[in-house]
Amino acid sequence: MTVQYDGTNFAGFQVQTGQRTVQGVLETALRRITGESIRIVGAGRTDRGVHATGQVISFQSGTSLAPRALQHALNAVLPEDVAIITAAEAEPGFHARFSARAREYRYTIWNAAERPVLGRQYVLHWRAYLDAAAMDRAAQVLVGEHDFAAFAGASEASERPRRTIRTMYRLRCWRDGHRVIVQAVADAFLPHMVRNVVGTLLLVGMHRASVEDVARILASRDRRQAGATIPPRGLCLTRVEYD
Amino acid sequence: MTVQYDGTNFAGFQVQTGQRTVQGVLETALRRITGESIRIVGAGRTDRGVHATGQVISFQSGTSLAPRALQHALNAVLPEDVAIITAAEAEPGFHARFSARAREYRYTIWNAAERPVLGRQYVLHWRAYLDAAAMDRAAQVLVGEHDFAAFAGASEASERPRRTIRTMYRLRCWRDGHRVIVQAVADAFLPHMVRNVVGTLLLVGMHRASVEDVARILASRDRRQAGATIPPRGLCLTRVEYD
Repeated sequence: MTVQYDGTNFAGFQVQTGQRTVQGVLETALRRITGESIRIVGAGRTDRGVHATGQVISFQSGTSLAPRALQHALNAVLPEDVAIITAAEAEPGFHARFSARAREYRYTIWNAAERPVLGRQYVLHWRAYLDAAAMDRAAQVLVGEHDFAAFAGASEASERPRRTIRTMYRLRCWRDGHRVIVQAVADAFLPHMVRNVVGTLLLVGMHRASVEDVARILASRDRRQAGATIPPRGLCLTRVEYD
Repeated sequence: MTVQYDGTNFAGFQVQTGQRTVQGVLETALRRITGESIRIVGAGRTDRGVHATGQVISFQSGTSLAPRALQHALNAVLPEDVAIITAAEAEPGFHARFSARAREYRYTIWNAAERPVLGRQYVLHWRAYLDAAAMDRAAQVLVGEHDFAAFAGASEASERPRRTIRTMYRLRCWRDGHRVIVQAVADAFLPHMVRNVVGTLLLVGMHRASVEDVARILASRDRRQAGATIPPRGLCLTRVEYD
């Protein structure tokens, strides 16, 4: 199933005791419709506050409902900040996370003096003018197979050496009116990686870091060299690719 | 000042005792910044749940702050669902409501089988497919100076005969992907008028009413003939025009 959600009022995708999570809400709805206790798998374990328009989940069920009927039944009981967009029966062995070839995230920045009001939940407000073309040039340094330890969550980088190699297929930045959008496509992402990459590209956009600085940060494998982890509200999991 | 707000958590524009209103929040912020008890005037008294990207307010103040400085000070204390977009000193005698020549509203319908999730606060979800071109043709019947009693709030139509004449300068409907947008520009609007007009055009979009039906409803001056008052969430005051 393809799932869309507004991450604002979720403590992330993954189930956590005592927290409202996307996985928890979906599993509750599945139990209500099928009577089964179903454990779902998500392609991306999005953090607290991160949105999705193209999250993919997989699960096994003995339900007699066809996929479309199950989709409609689930949407009727799900809260308004999550909805199933498509549903289909998968090949045997399909696993939303392990079968995925690539994930696409988009980070949206509202780059204007005044605060955004309508749709403010889905953007980061950044007052200083951003040179999106410079950000796009610097981004190309990160395309390809690299050790992204400098852009990983701090614990990830230190505790799991060599587990930080990823392949970035595409990393583009462009301006659309007051919006600056960063599109990132990789085989997989380290925790906080998109937010750390965009935090670093913001420095380039303000001309406080150069293309060479980004190359140096990447080579350092040192999380302290990169920009800040920016807030989750501008981030959205937009697509997951399978063979 | 031009003001933007997300109407979701406001009981409308106009001050009401014990309710959170846009006017109330703006007047509180003005008192906090200027020390004065200022009464503001809004160009359009939007209903509970209606949004604005181009509301205009006017007021008198003895503040020594320049308009831009006052704007920034207000934005620093206003809640995140309202912001001042522009500020300027007005001509003597300027009145946001009485000086306005025209108002523009937009109503946005999310016309798809599945519920909208991101940005759901700003659209009405309508499952049945809408023929936007048919809606646009029927809308042209309402352009010009007419007695809009059939589209007024019920009390308005019965209690104030002949006060229901308005001039509709422009009324267009078009589709943009899953969105159907209705743009309405008039000298002024009766209470609930845009929502009643769009409710009637929805019948045309579903081929349950014709262009002739819309002409007949307008001529009837009878509120019971028109479509339902649709919810406020899709409605936004987008612009106010002055000489």
